[in-house]
Amino acid sequence: MTSISQHAALSDAFRDETPWDVGDDGDTLHEECGIFGVIGARSASSVVALGLHALQHRGQEAVGITSFDGGEFFSHRGIGHVAHVFKNQDIFADLPGMMASGHVRYSTTGGSGLRNIQPLFADLADGGFSIAHNGNISNAMTLKRDLVHKGSIFQSTSDTEVIIHLVATSRYPTLLDRFVDALRLIEGAYALICTTPAGMIACRDPLGIRPLVMGRIGSSVVFASETVALDVVGADFEREVEPGELLVVDHNGVISSHRPFGDPAPRPCIFEQVYFSRPDSILGGQSVYQSRRQIGVELAKEAPADADLVVPVPDSGVPAAIGYAAESGIPFELGIIRSHYVGRTFIQPGDSKRHAEVKRKHNANRALVAGKRIVLIDDSIVRGTTSLKIVQMMRDAGASEVHMRIASPPTDHSCFYGVDTPERSKLLAARMDLEAMADYIQADSLAFVSIDGLYRAVGQQDRNAKCPQFCDACFTGEYPTQLTDYDADAVAGETEA
Amino acid sequence: MTSISQHAALSDAFRDETPWDVGDDGDTLHEECGIFGVIGARSASSVVALGLHALQHRGQEAVGITSFDGGEFFSHRGIGHVAHVFKNQDIFADLPGMMASGHVRYSTTGGSGLRNIQPLFADLADGGFSIAHNGNISNAMTLKRDLVHKGSIFQSTSDTEVIIHLVATSRYPTLLDRFVDALRLIEGAYALICTTPAGMIACRDPLGIRPLVMGRIGSSVVFASETVALDVVGADFEREVEPGELLVVDHNGVISSHRPFGDPAPRPCIFEQVYFSRPDSILGGQSVYQSRRQIGVELAKEAPADADLVVPVPDSGVPAAIGYAAESGIPFELGIIRSHYVGRTFIQPGDSKRHAEVKRKHNANRALVAGKRIVLIDDSIVRGTTSLKIVQMMRDAGASEVHMRIASPPTDHSCFYGVDTPERSKLLAARMDLEAMADYIQADSLAFVSIDGLYRAVGQQDRNAKCPQFCDACFTGEYPTQLTDYDADAVAGETEA
Amino acid sequence: MTSISQHAALSDAFRDETPWDVGDDGDTLHEECGIFGVIGARSASSVVALGLHALQHRGQEAVGITSFDGGEFFSHRGIGHVAHVFKNQDIFADLPGMMASGHVRYSTTGGSGLRNIQPLFADLADGGFSIAHNGNISNAMTLKRDLVHKGSIFQSTSDTEVIIHLVATSRYPTLLDRFVDALRLIEGAYALICTTPAGMIACRDPLGIRPLVMGRIGSSVVFASETVALDVVGADFEREVEPGELLVVDHNGVISSHRPFGDPAPRPCIFEQVYFSRPDSILGGQSVYQSRRQIGVELAKEAPADADLVVPVPDSGVPAAIGYAAESGIPFELGIIRSHYVGRTFIQPGDSKRHAEVKRKHNANRALVAGKRIVLIDDSIVRGTTSLKIVQMMRDAGASEVHMRIASPPTDHSCFYGVDTPERSKLLAARMDLEAMADYIQADSLAFVSIDGLYRAVGQQDRNAKCPQFCDACFTGEYPTQLTDYDADAVAGETEA
Amino acid sequence: MTSISQHAALSDAFRDETPWDVGDDGDTLHEECGIFGVIGARSASSVVALGLHALQHRGQEAVGITSFDGGEFFSHRGIGHVAHVFKNQDIFADLPGMMASGHVRYSTTGGSGLRNIQPLFADLADGGFSIAHNGNISNAMTLKRDLVHKGSIFQSTSDTEVIIHLVATSRYPTLLDRFVDALRLIEGAYALICTTPAGMIACRDPLGIRPLVMGRIGSSVVFASETVALDVVGADFEREVEPGELLVVDHNGVISSHRPFGDPAPRPCIFEQVYFSRPDSILGGQSVYQSRRQIGVELAKEAPADADLVVPVPDSGVPAAIGYAAESGIPFELGIIRSHYVGRTFIQPGDSKRHAEVKRKHNANRALVAGKRIVLIDDSIVRGTTSLKIVQMMRDAGASEVHMRIASPPTDHSCFYGVDTPERSKLLAARMDLEAMADYIQADSLAFVSIDGLYRAVGQQDRNAKCPQFCDACFTGEYPTQLTDYDADAVAGETEA
Repeated sequence: MTSISQHAALSDAFRDETPWDVGDDGDTLHEECGIFGVIGARSASSVVALGLHALQHRGQEAVGITSFDGGEFFSHRGIGHVAHVFKNQDIFADLPGMMASGHVRYSTTGGSGLRNIQPLFADLADGGFSIAHNGNISNAMTLKRDLVHKGSIFQSTSDTEVIIHLVATSRYPTLLDRFVDALRLIEGAYALICTTPAGMIACRDPLGIRPLVMGRIGSSVVFASETVALDVVGADFEREVEPGELLVVDHNGVISSHRPFGDPAPRPCIFEQVYFSRPDSILGGQSVYQSRRQIGVELAKEAPADADLVVPVPDSGVPAAIGYAAESGIPFELGIIRSHYVGRTFIQPGDSKRHAEVKRKHNANRALVAGKRIVLIDDSIVRGTTSLKIVQMMRDAGASEVHMRIASPPTDHSCFYGVDTPERSKLLAARMDLEAMADYIQADSLAFVSIDGLYRAVGQQDRNAKCPQFCDACFTGEYPTQLTDYDADAVAGETEA
Repeated sequence: MTSISQHAALSDAFRDETPWDVGDDGDTLHEECGIFGVIGARSASSVVALGLHALQHRGQEAVGITSFDGGEFFSHRGIGHVAHVFKNQDIFADLPGMMASGHVRYSTTGGSGLRNIQPLFADLADGGFSIAHNGNISNAMTLKRDLVHKGSIFQSTSDTEVIIHLVATSRYPTLLDRFVDALRLIEGAYALICTTPAGMIACRDPLGIRPLVMGRIGSSVVFASETVALDVVGADFEREVEPGELLVVDHNGVISSHRPFGDPAPRPCIFEQVYFSRPDSILGGQSVYQSRRQIGVELAKEAPADADLVVPVPDSGVPAAIGYAAESGIPFELGIIRSHYVGRTFIQPGDSKRHAEVKRKHNANRALVAGKRIVLIDDSIVRGTTSLKIVQMMRDAGASEVHMRIASPPTDHSCFYGVDTPERSKLLAARMDLEAMADYIQADSLAFVSIDGLYRAVGQQDRNAKCPQFCDACFTGEYPTQLTDYDADAVAGETEA
Repeated sequence: MTSISQHAALSDAFRDETPWDVGDDGDTLHEECGIFGVIGARSASSVVALGLHALQHRGQEAVGITSFDGGEFFSHRGIGHVAHVFKNQDIFADLPGMMASGHVRYSTTGGSGLRNIQPLFADLADGGFSIAHNGNISNAMTLKRDLVHKGSIFQSTSDTEVIIHLVATSRYPTLLDRFVDALRLIEGAYALICTTPAGMIACRDPLGIRPLVMGRIGSSVVFASETVALDVVGADFEREVEPGELLVVDHNGVISSHRPFGDPAPRPCIFEQVYFSRPDSILGGQSVYQSRRQIGVELAKEAPADADLVVPVPDSGVPAAIGYAAESGIPFELGIIRSHYVGRTFIQPGDSKRHAEVKRKHNANRALVAGKRIVLIDDSIVRGTTSLKIVQMMRDAGASEVHMRIASPPTDHSCFYGVDTPERSKLLAARMDLEAMADYIQADSLAFVSIDGLYRAVGQQDRNAKCPQFCDACFTGEYPTQLTDYDADAVAGETEA
Repeated sequence: MTSISQHAALSDAFRDETPWDVGDDGDTLHEECGIFGVIGARSASSVVALGLHALQHRGQEAVGITSFDGGEFFSHRGIGHVAHVFKNQDIFADLPGMMASGHVRYSTTGGSGLRNIQPLFADLADGGFSIAHNGNISNAMTLKRDLVHKGSIFQSTSDTEVIIHLVATSRYPTLLDRFVDALRLIEGAYALICTTPAGMIACRDPLGIRPLVMGRIGSSVVFASETVALDVVGADFEREVEPGELLVVDHNGVISSHRPFGDPAPRPCIFEQVYFSRPDSILGGQSVYQSRRQIGVELAKEAPADADLVVPVPDSGVPAAIGYAAESGIPFELGIIRSHYVGRTFIQPGDSKRHAEVKRKHNANRALVAGKRIVLIDDSIVRGTTSLKIVQMMRDAGASEVHMRIASPPTDHSCFYGVDTPERSKLLAARMDLEAMADYIQADSLAFVSIDGLYRAVGQQDRNAKCPQFCDACFTGEYPTQLTDYDADAVAGETEA
């Protein structure tokens, strides 16, 4: 099938201006999106901007906001940080109304630029319809093929657009019926915030894989991927949107809850606890900071080390390192200093090239580390390239021993639910056993927290093997949904052969 | 019905950069588009850029090119002149292939920016499909309403997109059948260049209201709105695409002609001769320069003046002024000097504000004009505001008499066929009779060429009142098609009340 | 001597945005600057912007304005057209005060960008001092060397900055004395507008090589390079600043005239009449349009041709062509159509590459030219490359004969007085005799107006060989000043060897 | 005296693009500059870019690099982060040569934009001369007045330019003599890196107030404000440039040391240890991280608190908090989470406006803090506004008690040596006593480390009151140099009255 790459002049020009980068060499898992919506608030669009600002750890490469003023919808989207795309106050005057929703996304895949930035919007027969989506629809390709054959024309390459066309072509009489009709056809992970002339719709997939919470500021209702966004806009946390729940809020603030999918057992993503969510968020009733600190405690119990210092890989390893230090009695110290100025790659002078890149982000605190036995704490290992560099940096700074402790089980399966993971064959833990991994990263010892230790840290007694309390497919390969668009080999990975 | 204005960050940012403007105070009629396509040429996209460059008098505010390399379609679009949007040579490397088509447009109405820039493109079930359109579909709103109700989602606010959705949802088996099915449903004026994986389609509406010509460079086939674009790319003119003709060219250069609408009598737009087309184009076998010069001759016969100098309003009045001077024996002189630097509006100093704006564009050649009786030649009068300023400028420069002669009949009806005209009530000739118009513009005398004089100048013996040889609705109100989307009042204008 | 190229990030970034180009392949002589100043006017800076807008034919690549509000000086400068650099109205609010001056320049030579854009400004011991200069100082290098040795630090590579440092380091007591002291040390051509806290100074070099006129709007005093700028701002022409005259205007409008150089015989540049000045300007009491038309008359007398059409090379050849046609009785017709959209170079398709570039700017009016004998009228021949292309274009369009007539004598010497000329060895007339030139441009015949014919056309009886009434060094090699910085060979050129 | 604000179009346009801000509400002291130079290295300019990248905590708003290729000097400067201004690799090709130096600066004061970005450069009589300066010259205004009266023209409003003009106008025979002649005339704080055709000059003021270190990469010599920059470029630390030492390095790597000021007792800035320098730098033989950790230890001894958690104000309070926790036995926990996305101010929704701004940067870790007694550790208090907000944030999150401990003595005097401090009357500690400060920030208790405690933490036995080992004027008011440009009142501040 032919396709077009509409690398419009504008988006290209803009990309050149983008002065930041992700700065992690692709060796980290990334949540792909954050969503936020508010209804019944004055300056709704600026509340959304503030909320999205607090969700940028979930997606920092593009941002969009759509508002509705009772008559018309308005939208502003751009590539870059929230503070960049919405730097002019005037923009909010062009996004009037008391209902608004927004979206931050991690990457603009496929060079399709602006067209894929959400919220997506369409003029349907009964009025405007916007949608902001965190997650991934695992039968989007299959559904799209059908829709195109019947005459639907897609604007973007986003899986999310499938939902809009399903709504547009559904034969049910009301918009809500058409929307539920659409959701019944899709599989995968989704937290959605939609706006229509009648109000706002927020929902989570039947398993609640991706998070979504509800809060209030006075009489206005707020939805957000995480509670930290409620804190930042001054909203009170009310409750989570339940897995499989669909909440409809009208312009008078009247809320109705719908459960079109019955009552399946929830499987929220456990990696939100490990890495994705902000430590100051509350997830499933659990403080993310405390979960991570507790993982460190479990790790210290399961994998003690004889060492002088506990050193976190900044910043994500800090809470677990505090827990590890507290449990083990080994002092917590900043053996690695992180630069606040991460940027694009420079040309490096010849002989110092090898380490310059990682040094721009992290630098060893030599005076502290020299001659010491170090326990390094990191959140996870993906490809292993960063771990190798960090271990080497500690040794170059004079560390006598380096013991690596990882605050999650080995990541040996890809995620198909809205997290940007390398294909399975690139995952270090899918390629090697523990010993080989320790050799690869050149650590004196290496240990991961156990899956049960992880479940304990997040407040469970243990993992219910028959019906796990979380989606932990990246650690176990037990995917809780069908994966229609992906063939078995892709899911299993070549390492299984 | 709600609608969205997606004034994306990027397009806004870009608009600020646009350093030119139309510079005519809205007191001119504008052709809205020019189109160009080539198939079977190396560097097809750069040939298209060159061709569009020569068609910018038909549309200078936005430009787009789509190419096809045998496998995929590529596209680049932007706001601004061709030389600006395609200033980087690298862009052509990103538009590979031997087939390409492009479009220049006059305005980006409705703030919808980039989305409305043509060629429009869609991934249909049988592959990519691009369309570039010059003209206006007069039942587009009606058709769109139907399509949206059946589930089609529109990307743009352009009437042209209706054609794509009609093709996408047609039930005919082949693309060509589906395309003809779509054309049968639309009314109005259209010259179209479409590209599909199988080749290029060029066609004109049954009356041939908008122009389209075919040429060749070696074995490659070229389509363009005007012959001047053939000259500039080094192509030989072959023939006009006939009114109601649909030409299909495949990648081997095989051309087939189709006539799905039978054989209605053509009605090409006569204003192309008066103003829209470049003077160095050949239109319907007639040199546009000679037509305009001959209008001046007819005007001198019909409306002589006792004067010292014939002065053209630059630049469009020059050919008619040469004809008028030659016929009348009065010397042709440049009594008005046109600045090459037309730009946005400045703050003007208080007491000279009244004339500063027009003076930035036109300045009287005082030494020449002072004490002289002047015949001023202009192409047309729309609102009359420019004529008033120009007459005043001649008087301020010391002209003793100013006789205005207009190289077209009075423009007293709006155009609904792709020309940007004010609503009827704004047209000077719809509001006043000849004497009142002369008073309004403060000329000593005023005359327009007669409708028959105009027909004579373009090579007809006279106007065939029963079945006019041209569309001259802007002069006569005789619209040659239905105008479904426009109610009778809009067409007739309030001046008829 | 070492030097720095401060290609600041900003200026480079900006250059990429510049969407226009000069578009003449370097085959034209260019005036390098235009200057404008006003004192005693409300919104002085916007008056200056308007005036500079009318002077952009003298320099379109960069523009600057400096204003003074009674306490402080303000400045805004940029690369690009006046309408681009001053497109935001807010800029004028940042340029307050009743005195302002400005400058447009042709090119930003040497990549030095913003630093060389005038007016130059310095904080001298007795306050701010700005200077805008049209012309060229022919001993600037020599003076600069001295100044640097004494400790002066130059900001720009502009010859104009020498004047500021001479003023700054002069030992005379008053600013006016120091300024005259500086002028006595410099040689060459200069029209200057300076602003100081006390008021405005305007002056011309002793020979008055470059033009400068004075006008009034009510009680405010205006200086400009040409009268057309007075017209555009609504000022009344008062008189020329006399060669060697220095006019000082204070904030009460009191004007004092000084003549520090005695009373040498003036030698204004005759090429201003031929090409540089706008046709609607009055220069030395003579209408430029009439001068050019009269050159055409002289040319028709001196070099008649047996032909069917007189065709101007647009736009500069038009007035002479009108004169030639009137005198010869051969009809004046537009055989070449000029595009209004001149832009950067595109990739051209292979076989049409040769003519594509010139065709983008000029296209033959084939229907008119085919089979005709043509007299082509152009203003001058510099390198000859454009003439060759234009003659060829006429032949390709079917002209049976092409007779080239040039409205100036052969340009066979470089200018050192502020005009951008190629070095002498590149000038066609310095390399070849008449016959060889005709061969080179492939014309059936070629003639230039004689130097005496030119003097007659501009109102003289003939050229006073002992003491010519004009600087005509580009035609005669008789330079009216010393050329300290240029050695004899550079002036004479290698063709003299 | 009049002055000009040359807010050039370009710099303004650029500023709009700058997507970051300082984000501290002006309630922090800022080092104003970082400098870096290398001689004898291939790709010298890219080594400098890498070094400056590591020094951006000393100045992140503008950056410049100058290089020398043996013949010419080259320069590139811009507003923004290093990674932004040098994002295109091509820039380094335009900065060729084996010697380069650069500068980052905190702010572009005075709206003067690009002109003030260092290294400053001038073409002196004996060749190019560049200078990069960290510090402040406290008699710059006085010297400038003299220089301007003698005819020097200043390009910038930077105090640094005074040095260049003193060099340019010195009558000594060699450049080195002229440079020392200039230094003898200036007073204040300076670390300088200069480049000349003969090589590089690095020097520190006689008291060594600002830091400067020397390192080597192979045969090339490197100078930098801090050792962290040596780490990042892969250089080995060699030694500090001594206070009052002037090092000259030629292109063969030959180094000569000069001591033109005799041997005064050094007084390096103690605030470098407290806040300015990166924790991974070594300063005066002391690890900055260890100094800060040790301040926390001293603080715990001097001002213990009965509390449940030690919470750092991120990120600068972390090392002291670790020391405080270790000494006191109270657990170290992250009670405040810092956002990595700091940006410009948004419109905030009405009722949450009060705290939104600080919440965008810092958010309380509610689950941890609620019901706890907190010891908050911050590096210093300037105006007190941030402390007030942070204390309030802890209380809003449910902290039962908040005890503030500050890792420096009260800051009650302004700095005149290159640190951006508010005027004295704005400093909280200059306005209030300890108790009033505690009330103002609404803390349950407040304590600062003592001046002797601070001296102990940085490795001294105590402060030598007669001849202090450091410049600690911001804590004591004992300025170690004359302050010619500042009158006594400004120094003492109105609070002394």
